[in-house]
Amino acid sequence: MDEDGLREHVEAEDLVGLRRWLDGRPPHEVAAELARLDAPSMALPFRLLDKDRALEVFEELDPVHQQCVLTGLREKAYQELVEGMDPDDRARMLAEAPATVVRRVLAGLSPRERRSTAALLGYPDDSAGRVMTPEVVWLHPQQTVAEALVEVRTRGAEAETIYTLPVIDTGRRLLGVVSLRTLVLSGTEERVEQVAISSPSVAATDQAEAAARLMQEADLLGLPVVDSEGRLVGMLTVDDAIEVIEAADTEDAERQSAASPLGKPYLAASVFTLARSRLPWLLLLIVAATMTVNVLQFFEASLAEVTALALFIPLITGSGGNAGSQSATSIVRALAVGDVRLGDLPRVIWRESRVGLLLGLALALIGLLVCSLFAGWQLGLVVGISLIVVCTWAAIVGGGMPLLARKIGVDPAVVSAPMVTTLVDATALIIYFLTAHLILNV
Amino acid sequence: MDEDGLREHVEAEDLVGLRRWLDGRPPHEVAAELARLDAPSMALPFRLLDKDRALEVFEELDPVHQQCVLTGLREKAYQELVEGMDPDDRARMLAEAPATVVRRVLAGLSPRERRSTAALLGYPDDSAGRVMTPEVVWLHPQQTVAEALVEVRTRGAEAETIYTLPVIDTGRRLLGVVSLRTLVLSGTEERVEQVAISSPSVAATDQAEAAARLMQEADLLGLPVVDSEGRLVGMLTVDDAIEVIEAADTEDAERQSAASPLGKPYLAASVFTLARSRLPWLLLLIVAATMTVNVLQFFEASLAEVTALALFIPLITGSGGNAGSQSATSIVRALAVGDVRLGDLPRVIWRESRVGLLLGLALALIGLLVCSLFAGWQLGLVVGISLIVVCTWAAIVGGGMPLLARKIGVDPAVVSAPMVTTLVDATALIIYFLTAHLILNV
Repeated sequence: MDEDGLREHVEAEDLVGLRRWLDGRPPHEVAAELARLDAPSMALPFRLLDKDRALEVFEELDPVHQQCVLTGLREKAYQELVEGMDPDDRARMLAEAPATVVRRVLAGLSPRERRSTAALLGYPDDSAGRVMTPEVVWLHPQQTVAEALVEVRTRGAEAETIYTLPVIDTGRRLLGVVSLRTLVLSGTEERVEQVAISSPSVAATDQAEAAARLMQEADLLGLPVVDSEGRLVGMLTVDDAIEVIEAADTEDAERQSAASPLGKPYLAASVFTLARSRLPWLLLLIVAATMTVNVLQFFEASLAEVTALALFIPLITGSGGNAGSQSATSIVRALAVGDVRLGDLPRVIWRESRVGLLLGLALALIGLLVCSLFAGWQLGLVVGISLIVVCTWAAIVGGGMPLLARKIGVDPAVVSAPMVTTLVDATALIIYFLTAHLILNV
Repeated sequence: MDEDGLREHVEAEDLVGLRRWLDGRPPHEVAAELARLDAPSMALPFRLLDKDRALEVFEELDPVHQQCVLTGLREKAYQELVEGMDPDDRARMLAEAPATVVRRVLAGLSPRERRSTAALLGYPDDSAGRVMTPEVVWLHPQQTVAEALVEVRTRGAEAETIYTLPVIDTGRRLLGVVSLRTLVLSGTEERVEQVAISSPSVAATDQAEAAARLMQEADLLGLPVVDSEGRLVGMLTVDDAIEVIEAADTEDAERQSAASPLGKPYLAASVFTLARSRLPWLLLLIVAATMTVNVLQFFEASLAEVTALALFIPLITGSGGNAGSQSATSIVRALAVGDVRLGDLPRVIWRESRVGLLLGLALALIGLLVCSLFAGWQLGLVVGISLIVVCTWAAIVGGGMPLLARKIGVDPAVVSAPMVTTLVDATALIIYFLTAHLILNV
């Protein structure tokens, strides 16, 4: 089967070929191919899928693509898709839709579905409440395992997950959880309270990312979500957790290149959207870069005297920027996965300063060689010493800044390679020219 | 409870306080705190935990920390921990252990456990076979749902997961899967073949990362792993998949800063290990950076004539590097999550060239202003025009290189911000001096 089949069939409006292509393909593959079509064509394949398949494929799409599809469908197909979605997926789609679309969608839902979606939309952006499923099968501690299994059979079809079953008291307060695995493997006469285990839980207003990382660390398939009184309001499922973590990592990757998070797949973003997400940081950085102009102007007399000094400017600033970026990236990632914490600042600085010194010594050897070749050993000495000091300094700055960002409540991922590079550039030049002043006396 | 409790108790050798601290804490939290101790102290808390808790905590540790713990334990406690691990976790730990440790561990296992671990170790590094669990409960198509549930109850306790149950024929070939959810919700007289669904599967020699991403995209809790004949050999579980993806993303993050993957948590790596993982790229990049010395030497006459030209070198190379890094990072991430594919090269280049042009126009305005202030409008014009050309060029290079890397079979993540910056530096200088030559006639 050729990879580009779908696109070609859609462009040729070849319905027979399209139907054959769609036939029996797993939903996530159909969704991945759909996401690569131009927006106006995205609805076409949906007219050929039966209701259940259409829903499966639809749920695999990103919210931005879901909207493209809905725009191209007639009222009836539209309502069927939206009514069939899980409330949390629906809320995620609506969170990014214009107000008119939200009204139209909510109006078409059954009262029950409308209620649960509206409840989810009431939680803050990026909160656990937004991504949880409110459709939960819960158990009571006095039930037997046999009764619990009947409960699961009766009400399980509606719920998104039945693998982690919360146990609640009469006041709906969370007591613990039982896994379906435990229920199946336990004796039928045992009571739920005997087989239940305590479980971490999160508040609906907590950050979804923190909740997802907790699920990942504790290897949970489901995490109960409670309100401020400790009452069960929903469950976070592992597939939603994975999506939250992937989105957070993508956001970090974007921040790390000094771009604002796009919030949508690369090819779904217009050229203007891409430029807009990157421009603010670039502007900030070019303004910061004018510091380098100031520094160089201050040393213009030395430059005029020894023009050869200018030859090594990009080499020095570049190496400093690279060493600093390495430190920043490894600390940002260590913070994201929880290997390093706020209190580790002194430890990180001490480690990075030694790493920077080692790297600086190695680079200084190369710098000394290259520079002596081009401009004599005296300038070589200047470049070598500068590289040692600059690399040590850059590693300290790169390692310390993400922790300082976290301390003042800013996402550490904004400490990007471009940001470190720009900040290190000016100080690297000062170090370079001061060293030149000491050694060459210019 | 104070965050640093464990460390303090261990340092003070306060066993009573330590026992109290350990009591009732979830395993993943104990593991996270343990990971922050110095290697020689890591075994101490294990002597206070009962056997089951010790195993739960131990399984949450990274392989490198697991080894620290084992080194500090007596033979009996050691064997209990190793025997109790899941075969896949054990294989992961042994893969990173010295040969003597591997022999000692394998010798202490029961024949059955030894066999399954040795089988896993036979698969290539980073393959699905290495991370799968070989302990699987499988079903036959002719069984009724009731019989299947009995099978699950009988053999489920040993298996790592019973939520996705593979269905096999008499030749052990994979026919499909049934979820435990389906079994529980179906009528007991239905046959397994009636409720089974087809499932994707991977070969044991396939890349673990690709298998994990497939599970993520298709929202699977379990993925059957087969041999080259299509016979079932194990299952990949969602918690292993999440770990594989996290490790791959950390590797990408490290590559993105031009460092070799560490393969262990930041604080677990020595200063020398950190320096060694970062040095090769830094050396390569500083050698590449000597190109900038060549370029500048070529234009040394222009520099000597108009010293002010040197003032804007870091601003131009910096902006080009930043724009290029942004493009590279967004394409590397888009490739990793599957939003962009190899065939998209022309589309990506065309998009990035327009984004780069837009960004260049905006930066040129600032550059023109700043430069006119410092050095007059003529030089301002040179800087402005250079910024437009450099940004466009940098975005094309940054967007295109990850795809070219993938094309020649190299991990696109090696196209790091430092790498793009270094490569763009020399060409940016050429563009700058040629523009100066045209406009200022130097």
